[in-house]
Amino acid sequence: MTRTIMDLAETRAFLDREFPQMNAGGRAFVLEDVGPLSARMRLAGDERFLRPGGTLSGPAMMALADYALYAAILANIGPVALAVTTSLTFNFLRKPAGLDLIAETRLLKLGRRLAVGEVRIASPDSDDLVAQANGTYSIPPR
Amino acid sequence: MTRTIMDLAETRAFLDREFPQMNAGGRAFVLEDVGPLSARMRLAGDERFLRPGGTLSGPAMMALADYALYAAILANIGPVALAVTTSLTFNFLRKPAGLDLIAETRLLKLGRRLAVGEVRIASPDSDDLVAQANGTYSIPPR
Amino acid sequence: MTRTIMDLAETRAFLDREFPQMNAGGRAFVLEDVGPLSARMRLAGDERFLRPGGTLSGPAMMALADYALYAAILANIGPVALAVTTSLTFNFLRKPAGLDLIAETRLLKLGRRLAVGEVRIASPDSDDLVAQANGTYSIPPR
Amino acid sequence: MTRTIMDLAETRAFLDREFPQMNAGGRAFVLEDVGPLSARMRLAGDERFLRPGGTLSGPAMMALADYALYAAILANIGPVALAVTTSLTFNFLRKPAGLDLIAETRLLKLGRRLAVGEVRIASPDSDDLVAQANGTYSIPPR
Repeated sequence: MTRTIMDLAETRAFLDREFPQMNAGGRAFVLEDVGPLSARMRLAGDERFLRPGGTLSGPAMMALADYALYAAILANIGPVALAVTTSLTFNFLRKPAGLDLIAETRLLKLGRRLAVGEVRIASPDSDDLVAQANGTYSIPPR
Repeated sequence: MTRTIMDLAETRAFLDREFPQMNAGGRAFVLEDVGPLSARMRLAGDERFLRPGGTLSGPAMMALADYALYAAILANIGPVALAVTTSLTFNFLRKPAGLDLIAETRLLKLGRRLAVGEVRIASPDSDDLVAQANGTYSIPPR
Repeated sequence: MTRTIMDLAETRAFLDREFPQMNAGGRAFVLEDVGPLSARMRLAGDERFLRPGGTLSGPAMMALADYALYAAILANIGPVALAVTTSLTFNFLRKPAGLDLIAETRLLKLGRRLAVGEVRIASPDSDDLVAQANGTYSIPPR
Repeated sequence: MTRTIMDLAETRAFLDREFPQMNAGGRAFVLEDVGPLSARMRLAGDERFLRPGGTLSGPAMMALADYALYAAILANIGPVALAVTTSLTFNFLRKPAGLDLIAETRLLKLGRRLAVGEVRIASPDSDDLVAQANGTYSIPPR
């Protein structure tokens, strides 16, 4: 498959409708790309997510992973079915180098009823992973 | 052990210092109790966490679980060592009945170097679990 | 609900048919009880599962958790639909006191398409958990 | 780093000493390679691991992942410190194509006290993942 069901603009619009609280108070989560069984989302550095010492909050990274996986699934199955997160697992590995974080997702399985994906979160231009996550999503019957 | 190292007021103050962004924009996460190897935290219903359809956002619940586990650990080991989340696993089970959520945590292990706890998230006065989580925290050498 | 769909004898027979390799070489996993949304299974101590130092092997405990959860689900939904493990998470907490282990399972959710359960593994007559696990199982359409 | 602390032969010998029950009854788990922050292990198809319908058992795959991750860690830190599994997460994705399975591991973090790795399990010569796993291991002070 070389194309997604929804392109980047359509997926962004869908996320805005589905998650109006995602960027409440100023845009921080930005979907940068969608592709076959994949998506990339950026969490732009922002005071709201700072912790003492300058590291980024765990919950902010968990939200990034969840939104990024959701974007990858929706881009690949289209807006006709709504995926619901059933489980998520996070491993927090290293402090990030700066404020911005990039989440690269890959769907390991995209079935009729379940989607499973993984997320790698890193600082831009860095190979060292800040966090790694896995998510399972339930796809309702259409 | 019948008492915690930090009581409820001390633990609340510690959380406010460590996570100033936790309740940015208005108090939503409220630590209600700490006890031996346990803690209880409420996420007060708020527009910020609403999703279309009235359900609560996954990221809000994940933040609740993380803060609640952190509170349980800190209350039980004191402010001298800072626990860092190393991994978290969430299972999202049911839609909540209303806007408020209660997280009850229990530490399954509180070692010198690692703490492991579980969280049960439910609507107040309800036995049906909305979500269940497990977390592992690294305790640095003191 | 006060009764399961399959009783203990029926569930045992079902497990023997479904998992002939479970006790290959001598019975080690014994289903002791099934109940509403629950089951209890024992792993009888055996040389095969010993590690140097006398602790029990991780894989033996993971198998115990998987079989015990499967038993709880099947006892509660009956033999007409076969659950398939989609994900499992384990936390290994303490060395066991002896050779035998008891797994107590509780189903947190038993839906039409997904079942989620947790397992507590401990030495008999001990409250200290040796391991804790969560599993998600997919229930095919019937 | 271009070389591991223990080479393949040394790591195999170490596993045989540490896990004498791993291949009790006939060799089934074979460590095929170790490298910087990585290892590859094969589970050779065997009747013992068959389930009705010809698929491979979950517990067999979980053992494969645990042994493979352990091998990767030990090859990279040497035999002087013993890693202990603290947590493991598995996602079971697809039925395997045949009897043999290959586990490719990659260590995401190899710290002084914690190691985190991921495992991809697939049929030989296949890109479709049968299972994916993550593990966290505690490294005792040396």
